[in-house]
Amino acid sequence: MAKRVAVVLAGCGVFDGTEIHEASAVLVHLSRNGASVKIFAPSIDQMHVVDHLKGAPTEEKRNVLVESARLARGDIQDLSEVSVKDFDAIIFPGGFGVAKNLCSWAVQGKDCCVNEQVKAVLQAFHAEKKPIGLCCISPVLAAKVFPGCEVTVGNDKDERSPDVPGTAEAITQLGCKHICKNVNEAHVDEKNKIVTTCAFMCKAPLHEIFDGIGVMIQDVLKLA
Amino acid sequence: MAKRVAVVLAGCGVFDGTEIHEASAVLVHLSRNGASVKIFAPSIDQMHVVDHLKGAPTEEKRNVLVESARLARGDIQDLSEVSVKDFDAIIFPGGFGVAKNLCSWAVQGKDCCVNEQVKAVLQAFHAEKKPIGLCCISPVLAAKVFPGCEVTVGNDKDERSPDVPGTAEAITQLGCKHICKNVNEAHVDEKNKIVTTCAFMCKAPLHEIFDGIGVMIQDVLKLA
Repeated sequence: MAKRVAVVLAGCGVFDGTEIHEASAVLVHLSRNGASVKIFAPSIDQMHVVDHLKGAPTEEKRNVLVESARLARGDIQDLSEVSVKDFDAIIFPGGFGVAKNLCSWAVQGKDCCVNEQVKAVLQAFHAEKKPIGLCCISPVLAAKVFPGCEVTVGNDKDERSPDVPGTAEAITQLGCKHICKNVNEAHVDEKNKIVTTCAFMCKAPLHEIFDGIGVMIQDVLKLA
Repeated sequence: MAKRVAVVLAGCGVFDGTEIHEASAVLVHLSRNGASVKIFAPSIDQMHVVDHLKGAPTEEKRNVLVESARLARGDIQDLSEVSVKDFDAIIFPGGFGVAKNLCSWAVQGKDCCVNEQVKAVLQAFHAEKKPIGLCCISPVLAAKVFPGCEVTVGNDKDERSPDVPGTAEAITQLGCKHICKNVNEAHVDEKNKIVTTCAFMCKAPLHEIFDGIGVMIQDVLKLA
């Protein structure tokens, strides 16, 4: 029997939405492992619309669900319609959209708020002991909602800006345990059934990020 | 020495731009095969902006280069800057954006015009005997620019709408040869150094489309 997996998106594009290659990798690996997949996103305004050519915000308004539909080829539902009983696991790809649209980590770091729908969905899967897979910056959702959990975002120091207090440090300040992992590895918090991999948090060739996400997906499916 | 490959995008989203999972698969396979990649798109208005949730065009205007930059994580250049001498091969992922923005196939079929920049780039690679890889609907670009070439778009009948004259028939009417291939195969036109695979033109699980694109990429790199 195919494992039923919900995938939650946050837009379409690394700087204001879901990181595209992470989402695609998640879907390829779920397909290869025979999972049955449904895709969801909240119907809310994006915090930003970023011109990815200039790397700067624009004045535009876009909706997270509508833009996420690009990644889903139109086959997507409002996150308000997700029901934990219909699924064996849930996956959150990364991208700044997670830290801008699904929570306010991009602005407030560890003092962020998590979108109420996202928080309720995470708590529902956790309460039912159904596994939660997260990559890149998405593990901050787990760190915020499940104090004491174990996650990885790669190294303790942010490879891209090693001199500023990083994501791993903020996760530790939330009372969680940060586990250092390479890009081709995932960390499994067995107790909480939370599986994380660093993806684009590491500087690595795209195929290694793809493979690391594959490890995360396989670990999630084993727990499901 | 790494093969130098140009990848040309047409926006970001299956219904008005580049098919996202095809582009991501192209980039993952190029990375795994050690290629050095640069991404390009023309700086022109999209023909449509499609709301992928509703499946209908909106009144919005978006620029092909700016939206393609989402897929390229910002690392993209204007197609006008591509120089054939700097590359060993060129790849065009598919998506309706190819048939709407890079040529007018979506409206005019075999009587379409190909964007002048796109046509010039294709002709330049062809003249230098450098391989051209195309997937999904992109082979129509080759069929239009290189009469007599061989390409595949999967089956002779369009699997999604088998009762209307299909893409393969129009390709044949252009004087080209359509070769039937499965989703996990590519066709190599040795004489023209054109490599094609059907990708989302076939109904197939995502990982099979991913693998078929991998075959196309390997065949392109062998010819480069």
